[in-house]
Amino acid sequence: MNIVMLGSGNVATHLGLALKQAGNNILQVWSRTESHALHLASKLDASAADSFDKIITDADLYIISVLDDAISGVASRLQLKKGILVHTSGTTGIEALNGSSSKTGVFYPLQTFSKQKTVDFATIPIAVQGSDRDTAETLLSLGKQISRNVFLADDKQRRAMHIAAVFACNFTNHFYTIAEEMLEQHKLDFDLVRPLIAETAAKAQAFSPRAVQTGPAVRGDEGTLKRHREFLKENSELLELYDKISTSIRKQSEI
Amino acid sequence: MNIVMLGSGNVATHLGLALKQAGNNILQVWSRTESHALHLASKLDASAADSFDKIITDADLYIISVLDDAISGVASRLQLKKGILVHTSGTTGIEALNGSSSKTGVFYPLQTFSKQKTVDFATIPIAVQGSDRDTAETLLSLGKQISRNVFLADDKQRRAMHIAAVFACNFTNHFYTIAEEMLEQHKLDFDLVRPLIAETAAKAQAFSPRAVQTGPAVRGDEGTLKRHREFLKENSELLELYDKISTSIRKQSEI
Repeated sequence: MNIVMLGSGNVATHLGLALKQAGNNILQVWSRTESHALHLASKLDASAADSFDKIITDADLYIISVLDDAISGVASRLQLKKGILVHTSGTTGIEALNGSSSKTGVFYPLQTFSKQKTVDFATIPIAVQGSDRDTAETLLSLGKQISRNVFLADDKQRRAMHIAAVFACNFTNHFYTIAEEMLEQHKLDFDLVRPLIAETAAKAQAFSPRAVQTGPAVRGDEGTLKRHREFLKENSELLELYDKISTSIRKQSEI
Repeated sequence: MNIVMLGSGNVATHLGLALKQAGNNILQVWSRTESHALHLASKLDASAADSFDKIITDADLYIISVLDDAISGVASRLQLKKGILVHTSGTTGIEALNGSSSKTGVFYPLQTFSKQKTVDFATIPIAVQGSDRDTAETLLSLGKQISRNVFLADDKQRRAMHIAAVFACNFTNHFYTIAEEMLEQHKLDFDLVRPLIAETAAKAQAFSPRAVQTGPAVRGDEGTLKRHREFLKENSELLELYDKISTSIRKQSEI
């Protein structure tokens, strides 16, 4: 397919590279910031555009990968002659694209992308939605070129996926950071918990996390909970987080 | 060394197996519950004991691996002729063993153990403490038989390690469970976030988690935060957790 990428962030970069590698032509990269457009365009052998009037109007597919709040603004500025218009957001409804093309859709890869690290797109689940059956079919086929796990999902399911991902990824990473800080404060290295992090994630690949929960909260080990609370008492914010999550684990274990 | 294991839970099991495999003799397993003592003893080619008066009194090392609250109670019942007495707890001080042996210590492997899964002990950090220099040296040597990462740590450092581990392991696993439930509620499979979990943990192996934090909270993506809050409004407990952790991420990113 002939594709125009609108956006130049992590999702646009990794998705653009995967689509190109699968044999599609990335015709153009648009970004509000010219240097960003040029940078990604050079990686994708595409032309660059930094204003809406320079955007190619007869591509097969337009992929909007910008911050959620900017999606409908970008869509409303497009004047397309043909092609499917999609966004890649977990939390934005398909209706954000209404009026900008007769064929719209969502193409949502559920993964955390960062500049620092490449990912194997084949393992990334892609949730697809189309304004009509043909569009949905086209997007499913495109997804299957780059991923082994492509499926239809509506706005609500996609939003649930996104929130699940925030808990399983963003929030867990924040806890890694809290662990890192606690160790640093006591002149200990973050390497100490790295095997534990790997093991916890590896367990979740093979088991239901509910079945393998460990720690003082699920054991009801009041002595340890008390000693941890005592240790954290000078950091009221951390203590509050500790209590909230321990309580949540307790309740979960009683279901 | 000739070793007696006091306790038969996950830590006693995995540690006992590793020590045996490294060439030590596990003489005996004691547990309050006879069937538990017999079960682990059979794995370790050891004898089993379920009362304190049957415990061998001339071993080289006694390892107490029981719930933290029970450690000092078990220690106080021992009448040893010789040998080092240690516990394996992150949060319990070495003084819990006072009066039960002239040589005491702590041998704390920082990992999450479960019956379901074997672990490679060589990668597990072991924090060691001894009541005197000789005891500390002996425990360091023993640790090095089974792990590549053995080091001295005092009570406070060990407690910081344990709390860091609770955040990095127990609490993150609980968030995996929350993700699993959210997906189930919307007829979606937990497999969807498994690649994300693996990727997030893999990133933490190579980078500082602080540097690779992603998600709406760290981006300051207010639109997404608002839509997530709207989605969660019928589950006040989850919404509260969502808000607390998003705020904590925000603050962290502003340091």
